[in-house]
Amino acid sequence: MDIIITIASTVLEQMQKPTLAFLIAGMMLAALGSKFEIPDPVYKFIVIVLLLKVGMGAGISIRQADLFSLVVPAIGAAVVGITIVLIGSRTLARLKGVSQVDGLATAGLFGAVSASTLAAGMAILDDEGIAYEGFIGALYPFMDIAALVTAIVLAKMATARKAAAGNTMADGTMTLGGSGKAPIAEAGLVRGILVETFRSPAISALIAGLALGVLAKPDSVFDSFYEPLFRGLLSILMLIMGMEAWARFAELRKVAHAYILYGITAPIIHGMLGFGVGVIAHELTGFSAGGIVLLSVMAASSSDISGPPTMRAALPEANSSAYVGTSTGLGTPIAILSIPLFIALAEIVVGT
Amino acid sequence: MDIIITIASTVLEQMQKPTLAFLIAGMMLAALGSKFEIPDPVYKFIVIVLLLKVGMGAGISIRQADLFSLVVPAIGAAVVGITIVLIGSRTLARLKGVSQVDGLATAGLFGAVSASTLAAGMAILDDEGIAYEGFIGALYPFMDIAALVTAIVLAKMATARKAAAGNTMADGTMTLGGSGKAPIAEAGLVRGILVETFRSPAISALIAGLALGVLAKPDSVFDSFYEPLFRGLLSILMLIMGMEAWARFAELRKVAHAYILYGITAPIIHGMLGFGVGVIAHELTGFSAGGIVLLSVMAASSSDISGPPTMRAALPEANSSAYVGTSTGLGTPIAILSIPLFIALAEIVVGT
Amino acid sequence: MDIIITIASTVLEQMQKPTLAFLIAGMMLAALGSKFEIPDPVYKFIVIVLLLKVGMGAGISIRQADLFSLVVPAIGAAVVGITIVLIGSRTLARLKGVSQVDGLATAGLFGAVSASTLAAGMAILDDEGIAYEGFIGALYPFMDIAALVTAIVLAKMATARKAAAGNTMADGTMTLGGSGKAPIAEAGLVRGILVETFRSPAISALIAGLALGVLAKPDSVFDSFYEPLFRGLLSILMLIMGMEAWARFAELRKVAHAYILYGITAPIIHGMLGFGVGVIAHELTGFSAGGIVLLSVMAASSSDISGPPTMRAALPEANSSAYVGTSTGLGTPIAILSIPLFIALAEIVVGT
Repeated sequence: MDIIITIASTVLEQMQKPTLAFLIAGMMLAALGSKFEIPDPVYKFIVIVLLLKVGMGAGISIRQADLFSLVVPAIGAAVVGITIVLIGSRTLARLKGVSQVDGLATAGLFGAVSASTLAAGMAILDDEGIAYEGFIGALYPFMDIAALVTAIVLAKMATARKAAAGNTMADGTMTLGGSGKAPIAEAGLVRGILVETFRSPAISALIAGLALGVLAKPDSVFDSFYEPLFRGLLSILMLIMGMEAWARFAELRKVAHAYILYGITAPIIHGMLGFGVGVIAHELTGFSAGGIVLLSVMAASSSDISGPPTMRAALPEANSSAYVGTSTGLGTPIAILSIPLFIALAEIVVGT
Repeated sequence: MDIIITIASTVLEQMQKPTLAFLIAGMMLAALGSKFEIPDPVYKFIVIVLLLKVGMGAGISIRQADLFSLVVPAIGAAVVGITIVLIGSRTLARLKGVSQVDGLATAGLFGAVSASTLAAGMAILDDEGIAYEGFIGALYPFMDIAALVTAIVLAKMATARKAAAGNTMADGTMTLGGSGKAPIAEAGLVRGILVETFRSPAISALIAGLALGVLAKPDSVFDSFYEPLFRGLLSILMLIMGMEAWARFAELRKVAHAYILYGITAPIIHGMLGFGVGVIAHELTGFSAGGIVLLSVMAASSSDISGPPTMRAALPEANSSAYVGTSTGLGTPIAILSIPLFIALAEIVVGT
Repeated sequence: MDIIITIASTVLEQMQKPTLAFLIAGMMLAALGSKFEIPDPVYKFIVIVLLLKVGMGAGISIRQADLFSLVVPAIGAAVVGITIVLIGSRTLARLKGVSQVDGLATAGLFGAVSASTLAAGMAILDDEGIAYEGFIGALYPFMDIAALVTAIVLAKMATARKAAAGNTMADGTMTLGGSGKAPIAEAGLVRGILVETFRSPAISALIAGLALGVLAKPDSVFDSFYEPLFRGLLSILMLIMGMEAWARFAELRKVAHAYILYGITAPIIHGMLGFGVGVIAHELTGFSAGGIVLLSVMAASSSDISGPPTMRAALPEANSSAYVGTSTGLGTPIAILSIPLFIALAEIVVGT
């Protein structure tokens, strides 16, 4: 009972902190039909500055980090990304009214990572004075890319299998040649997705920041510009995310109820999965409590910037109302709002 | 004589201060035919950041303010907004070459408030070290909405009366049914204008800031981002306002001379009206000298962001060259340039 | 030998400093085919803020500068701008595969100045703690406009001469009237280019900043906004310049090899020319070592913002792939990357 009170009071207190308060304000604006908007070029610029900052911060920290304490959470992040998609393929993709491709696309976005949600997690931890590994930002691409690749490959395989089955029925013979070519096509597919993902604006900005942090000495501009602007730009981003979530949520009315169930429960379940992996890393390498929280936040988050266009390009047959509505309309706000939950949990499980 | 010298020297000194200097620089750029421009998305973003800042600052102050000292200037602000429109309907709207609807639309914009002019007033007072109530920003919507609603309702009623008169002449009978329906239609009209105004980007941003300031604890991001960027973004906004004023001023050549007379004298007269109401609030609740100045500035200012589109939507028959030209081309620069005048007056009347 | 080692180690060290590191990161992003981009309105805004800052800083310094120490480098800057174009007209414009107009347009851009390159030079000198005259920014228009006017006038004269020659051959008579009118047309032409250049967004922003710095007192907003944001915005601008350089470089494959040779060697040769003029000013007026470096950087740089549209408007017959590709694709990155070279040289020649 005490635990629930602790969690509830932490959550309520967090609602008043800038990060969550701006998210809720954005949702209220949209709910009241406001014509308030942040112009798209400014939105894109804010995201890029945040990603450069997260990447650069991680890069600067990696210079001092020892390899082992970095590799364990990185592998953990990739495992979490793949596991989330596999869970989605056994649950959401088999529910009533959900096509397999749509279900996998949605699970892929939920496995991928949201830069704004991660940034929100960092800002909240900073507010609370809870320390975390500086290299955390470097885990982002491991989870993000693992999830996107797994989801797209599974969806393509399912489509191919279906097409093969269709052919069999149509002309009465097994198209063995088709399945014989599959491994080669698959390798090309994975490569294509990897290249596509690395070239996406979000991952590019993050990797550029990482490279600058590791290879150059951007500390002066990092301290004088990227770090001080981080909180303010994040507050504006939260307003946009809140409005966007409300607008996207309306789209969910058009698709199966299964998506709503998934959108509400998945962030919490995925966050717990990330939490578990974080605790394992804590035991193995002394991964910090703040690090565990941020790994949970990454797992709970769903991709809102680079994910959707990647999905659209890779799986044009999937219904974007379903996957964007579920991830941006439900997944993202629930993930952001559950950050205090993971903080409360971390305090109970490992102490801070 | 001494008073005039005091005022003149204050005005001249202010011309060199950033706020007015950037406004004048913008007018010079436009006058010299420069192709200099701030891209529109950036302009919109700057306005939103300023309005969030003004709203949030007001919200944070309201938490500590006592109700009475807040209510008196708020009522005063609404009264000023309504009075300005009524003055306009008896003067401008009856002048030669001015249609009643155009006159009311113009008076409505002059009664409404300009966020940038208010921000300029705040920056100048800060520069001078003159204190003002933190909640001042919260008075904005009272004056703004009161003026817009009054102007639009009066214009609609005038149009309805005219149409009714036209019908009478056309078919020889009084259309009593039409005027009988008026009160209901009017209530719907006022509600429509209120909803429209609250949903406009400018008022939305201000209200969102207010709500964040009152209900949440955005102080950390306010102090680290919104407050420090305020002056710089305002300087850029002043450049834009100056260029815009010059460009709009050219449009005035196409309309009646009455608009030019009104555009030049109205800001000063309205400012004096606001000044008087401010002095009354000073006597009643100890409203500060800085507060009196800002109430004068709000009264002197004319809406440049949310007002024009509201007018266009509500009164499509009004001539936008007339009301936008008069308010943005003359009203706004004269209001901003007369800020030092109100400061000098306040020093003489109540001391600072 | 020691000198080469000193230069090489300075260059290598500079590669890790924010300014050059972000430029190289931008080139890498483009080379890897990234879809990363800074939206155009944000790019334009960044350039304007940097130019306002450079102009304002120069204006504030001019207030304290004595006329002679300002006039000598200003004349030097104009002489450098004109000389660069004359060199180009004797070399590039006579090479194989280069039309005279294209060659002059390219030389004009190389004589003109890049705001971002100058800003990069200032940031690097600040990093190194090397002092320079505050009024340096005011030299920009002298070199920039001198070069653009010279190039366009020479190109127009060449075209007119060709047309006259064509007419002679065509109808067998000299068109004396045409050449008789030339001086008047030329005066009009020079005036037209001057007006066009002063009205261009870049020069306008610089002049507005200069005027504000000299005539007003913008110091408070300069110190609280323009100065602190300078480095951060410059880092983002460098990313854009790097990507743009890579993209433009591809265009050079379509034009004569002569452009590549010119694009690589010209920045260094022009920089040396600026260096020489700087050293003369050093002897005459005590022009600082940092000032010599920045004069070299201006001479080495080629116009990337205001120059290309001016050229396009003035010389529509010139091939923009050639002049933009050479200047933005090769000239700009080489000029920025050679900044450390000029610093090393200045240390050797005049000491710092």
